[in-house]
Amino acid sequence: MIELDSDERYMRMAMAEARQAAAEGEVPIGAVVVSPRGRILGRGHNQTEALGDVTAHAEMIAISAAAQALGGKYLSDCTLYVTVEPCLMCAGALGWSQTGRIVYGCEDPRRGFSTMTSRSPFHPKAKVAGGILADECRRIMQDFFKSLRN
Amino acid sequence: MIELDSDERYMRMAMAEARQAAAEGEVPIGAVVVSPRGRILGRGHNQTEALGDVTAHAEMIAISAAAQALGGKYLSDCTLYVTVEPCLMCAGALGWSQTGRIVYGCEDPRRGFSTMTSRSPFHPKAKVAGGILADECRRIMQDFFKSLRN
Repeated sequence: MIELDSDERYMRMAMAEARQAAAEGEVPIGAVVVSPRGRILGRGHNQTEALGDVTAHAEMIAISAAAQALGGKYLSDCTLYVTVEPCLMCAGALGWSQTGRIVYGCEDPRRGFSTMTSRSPFHPKAKVAGGILADECRRIMQDFFKSLRN
Repeated sequence: MIELDSDERYMRMAMAEARQAAAEGEVPIGAVVVSPRGRILGRGHNQTEALGDVTAHAEMIAISAAAQALGGKYLSDCTLYVTVEPCLMCAGALGWSQTGRIVYGCEDPRRGFSTMTSRSPFHPKAKVAGGILADECRRIMQDFFKSLRN
């Protein structure tokens, strides 16, 4: 499992994915999946507009990519970093993939899993940490929606 | 929106998808998305083993296929039929896709959305019906797991 002091480093990689999404006109959320040795196994950014597919969230793309890279469905020893609290769909996918650790940036009070679930959607052994570089992750979102209004 | 008396007909199409999954050694769950005029816009069966991807649930495949067929992300006037109560991931995707009506067969007391959520995961206007051909849908699952044990 990844050491805590490298969380910010990997979150910045997820933030780079989020900025890529913004550049493509997508709601700017990014994710990376990291192996126990610190290798990036999958990365993704929101592509729902480009693909015309509501399931193309950053986490879904990163999870699928990581599974392909590993040649297996389960990400038990891996950590997923995502800039915004996962939604119900992505939290469910993280549960099915048995992702070992989930680290997110800012909260999503409207659509985040924590306001929607009555029990943990993740694997029973999964660890969850929120609030990593939360202000910066939130600012990417705020800047994007501000730019849409202008 | 689809008339109620045709629910069984479309559920049988979803059941055919589920049996296809069983034939491929996959947990036998099937889904179809139907337009307001009764056209099948998307169909899917569980393919998590074949694709090595936990996100390849019947509903996810059917939703993505329907969106491609329609050329748009939203399925507001459509009905999704699925043989088993959707999991959290699929319920979340149904919410994002604003699917207008969700009809499922048997319940899933362990992984079904209704035991996992603290509020509706679907669009506020979505209608939900469970228990359509529930016994037959459940039997497809039971037969599959029994065959695995033999």
